[in-house]
Amino acid sequence: MSNDAPIGMFDSGIGGLTIAKALLERLPRESLRYVGDTAHMPYGDKSPERLKEYATGIAQRLLDQGCKALVVACNSASSNAMAEVRELAGPEVPVIDVVHPVVEWAAKHHPGGELGLIGTRATVQSGLYDQLLLARGIRVESLATPLLASAIEEGFHNGTISHAVVEAYFADGWAAGKDALVLACTHYPLVMEDIRAQLPRGMAVLDAPSIVSHHVESVLRERGLLASGNSPTRRFEVTDWTQSFADGAAHILGQPVELVEVAWPEAK
Amino acid sequence: MSNDAPIGMFDSGIGGLTIAKALLERLPRESLRYVGDTAHMPYGDKSPERLKEYATGIAQRLLDQGCKALVVACNSASSNAMAEVRELAGPEVPVIDVVHPVVEWAAKHHPGGELGLIGTRATVQSGLYDQLLLARGIRVESLATPLLASAIEEGFHNGTISHAVVEAYFADGWAAGKDALVLACTHYPLVMEDIRAQLPRGMAVLDAPSIVSHHVESVLRERGLLASGNSPTRRFEVTDWTQSFADGAAHILGQPVELVEVAWPEAK
Repeated sequence: MSNDAPIGMFDSGIGGLTIAKALLERLPRESLRYVGDTAHMPYGDKSPERLKEYATGIAQRLLDQGCKALVVACNSASSNAMAEVRELAGPEVPVIDVVHPVVEWAAKHHPGGELGLIGTRATVQSGLYDQLLLARGIRVESLATPLLASAIEEGFHNGTISHAVVEAYFADGWAAGKDALVLACTHYPLVMEDIRAQLPRGMAVLDAPSIVSHHVESVLRERGLLASGNSPTRRFEVTDWTQSFADGAAHILGQPVELVEVAWPEAK
Repeated sequence: MSNDAPIGMFDSGIGGLTIAKALLERLPRESLRYVGDTAHMPYGDKSPERLKEYATGIAQRLLDQGCKALVVACNSASSNAMAEVRELAGPEVPVIDVVHPVVEWAAKHHPGGELGLIGTRATVQSGLYDQLLLARGIRVESLATPLLASAIEEGFHNGTISHAVVEAYFADGWAAGKDALVLACTHYPLVMEDIRAQLPRGMAVLDAPSIVSHHVESVLRERGLLASGNSPTRRFEVTDWTQSFADGAAHILGQPVELVEVAWPEAK
């Protein structure tokens, strides 16, 4: 495996680009292959069986392209399909999900605390965060906010929409009394200001893009896989090209992105 | 073709059940096969190419089951994939979409009028309603409200959500001065009260489930295809089984529904 092989990353849509952006800022020498599975977006309301099928299908595609590591940049897939993706990748290719790094960070910075967590229905119903945090002595109260990811995708065109949805979900003072909030969906950092406005003053919000990109760096360093090259390449693929995805991607990455539509990879 | 063969109907999700409910109330002797393509829900943000692929895949499945007529109970598919579905069905099997019956109704009841229309991005961007209405001397101003269908699916669990989204879309008095509103998405009648609350007093809202089910009856009668049997059967299939769909379906139809998950039909 060449150190200059790309990192493979995927999400159902543009949310994972928040992870991609943080990663490329931290590791500008890395090459990246990103797949947004827009044909099946959003993942948050799909069943575990379907999520396993989609995640392994995309992972196989990225492995076939010679990726040296995989980042599952979606909480719904990370909560429901990691065993299958890890089995596919085998021992040589590290697979990083977005749940475990955040859990370890919380265990270190909020020991014995009580967290709030918002995420998609697929993520919340999996119970994975609860189980991992409880095992580390941290209580967590989870709230499914299934419309929020779609509202954020829509928010690039109509800012009042994501604002209204955040307000509706937090309307009953749900966050009061908690030590920190976990944004258990890679879309949510995109409306950080709307979310902060609904939280008690001073409440911490865990910064998943930063935490996860730091973890990816650690894993690559441990394995001796950090890129050495000076001409990294980036490729962004979607399974269904739409203008609204292109607009959202440019907004997140801060520059126009060339998006390539690819045929849906056949599930194994 | 037997008169007692079922009517085949599909949508991306539960929105089409508003049409199914009106149809079964009007024609209680008819058998129905309904497919909700929840694996690809929502259709409203998919590209025309993908909508053609999904619509023809499901239509073929319903034709293979011997359906005597097809109802495309989704505006996004009706606006982007009818030529393909009609070609597949051939001359013997009538295919009814949800756009043309509403346009004809508007031409009759609002001649020379100005309509407002809300729908998904796929429906609005197709321009089909504008083109058909303009040809009949009716002006229409269209507004894409892409989050509303998902908000309605979510609304079965959190009523404040769909309310907040309707308010956000109508915030600027967009509907003022128009003669009537077209709900160009089969989900929207489910939040009729929220929508009416945002409209000028007395403004008409076109009742698509009633209009379309009436049109289906006319077509079946003209072709001599009305059912004569006394033991109609109904079957509801989804391409991805989720509790949230089951809850929504029971809410709309007013009774528990047995939902069968089926493998995604291969596109031709």
